[in-house]
Amino acid sequence: VRSDYNQKFGIPRQANLVDGLEQAIVIEPEFRNMDALRGITGFDYIWVIWGFSETSLDMDAEHVKWKPTVRPPRLGGDERMGVWATRSPYRPNSLGLSNVRIRRVELDGAMVDPDERKGMVSGELAVIIAGADMMNGTPVYDIKPYMPYSDSHPDARAGFTERSRDRFLQVDFPPSLLEMIDEEKRDGLIQTLRLDPRDAYNRKSAHTYGLSFSEYDIRFEVNGDTLSVTDVVTERSYE
Amino acid sequence: VRSDYNQKFGIPRQANLVDGLEQAIVIEPEFRNMDALRGITGFDYIWVIWGFSETSLDMDAEHVKWKPTVRPPRLGGDERMGVWATRSPYRPNSLGLSNVRIRRVELDGAMVDPDERKGMVSGELAVIIAGADMMNGTPVYDIKPYMPYSDSHPDARAGFTERSRDRFLQVDFPPSLLEMIDEEKRDGLIQTLRLDPRDAYNRKSAHTYGLSFSEYDIRFEVNGDTLSVTDVVTERSYE
Repeated sequence: VRSDYNQKFGIPRQANLVDGLEQAIVIEPEFRNMDALRGITGFDYIWVIWGFSETSLDMDAEHVKWKPTVRPPRLGGDERMGVWATRSPYRPNSLGLSNVRIRRVELDGAMVDPDERKGMVSGELAVIIAGADMMNGTPVYDIKPYMPYSDSHPDARAGFTERSRDRFLQVDFPPSLLEMIDEEKRDGLIQTLRLDPRDAYNRKSAHTYGLSFSEYDIRFEVNGDTLSVTDVVTERSYE
Repeated sequence: VRSDYNQKFGIPRQANLVDGLEQAIVIEPEFRNMDALRGITGFDYIWVIWGFSETSLDMDAEHVKWKPTVRPPRLGGDERMGVWATRSPYRPNSLGLSNVRIRRVELDGAMVDPDERKGMVSGELAVIIAGADMMNGTPVYDIKPYMPYSDSHPDARAGFTERSRDRFLQVDFPPSLLEMIDEEKRDGLIQTLRLDPRDAYNRKSAHTYGLSFSEYDIRFEVNGDTLSVTDVVTERSYE
């Protein structure tokens, strides 16, 4: 996956919360066969099965190990739930599952119709999606169509997530700083900030946090319900 | 997974179509920690990520390979779609994804409350589910809670599956043969037969098919829209 999220910090805790940003599932060369994507744009959503890579987990070896319980951010970080009752990365098999919108298929950056074009292609073949909660560079193992007939249960009980403390922050983004951000990425960035990128159990007032987003380093503080962006630095190192 | 489906033949092509049968996700000994399941019974559904094992694919090596297109049973088997637009097993990574009801957690066959009991257990720990489309013995890699907030899109476009030719068969099950089946498994078996276990592109009239279901071998014919069970043989060989 190619995405604007360069680090675990700041990634929305659920897919589909930030719909404004697009990401790309780049198909490996040996699988760049247009036939394999025939029919996929007839679906609104796809499932992506991916791997929590080492870089998306904390580097501390103690934390990368499987843990029977985790502290879900939605419970404020002070209550423990079984890892299999959550989507935490610290699980026996570090598989991630995301439900994302499918926007289009691109060949070398140009839209292509997988129902018309056939066979192997030599250019970069990518499925463009939106709403993903995957870090840049995340390995994707499989994609599958979303079928409402079998996959949608709007009235399903949602366990502890029904007691969710998720709330949105007010984002104070000074116009002079916002202008430094690519226009098409502003909404996605603001939505990401509104969701509060901080760990639920490590929230400090008057502390400057740094969020690596696309080619920017966003510096911010949170006081009460307001997140204030204090600086934007353009990163070049990762290019 | 422990299930009544002993072979690929006869497994419903979508999870949740046969709700009457229960299956068991048996937790491997090293993960038999009740804490890891805390909170899971507060959900109605879970996601199961599993592997299409060799035995669930055709034995013919030519078929086990990845194929860019497949013939979805829902299209009557005479139209090809891209493998990533389907949930076919013949995909680069043979991962399966099923949405199943969670019924309860059992320790050595007795219901146990994972929110009360703590720590490692020595008995057989299993998550009892219903509606699974997995073969007996299928390896399970991960389970995750179903969250309607992010996972449910009842109005999503469903691509080629909207043109589905799925239909139900009438099932003629002579009472003398039905009596041979465990009472609690009868509904599940009949639902399985109603969905037509035959390959979409290999349907013969006046041909006797055999379906291995639980400890039974079910012999049947299909003529028009009616499936007639002609014999039930009790299998012992797999025990």
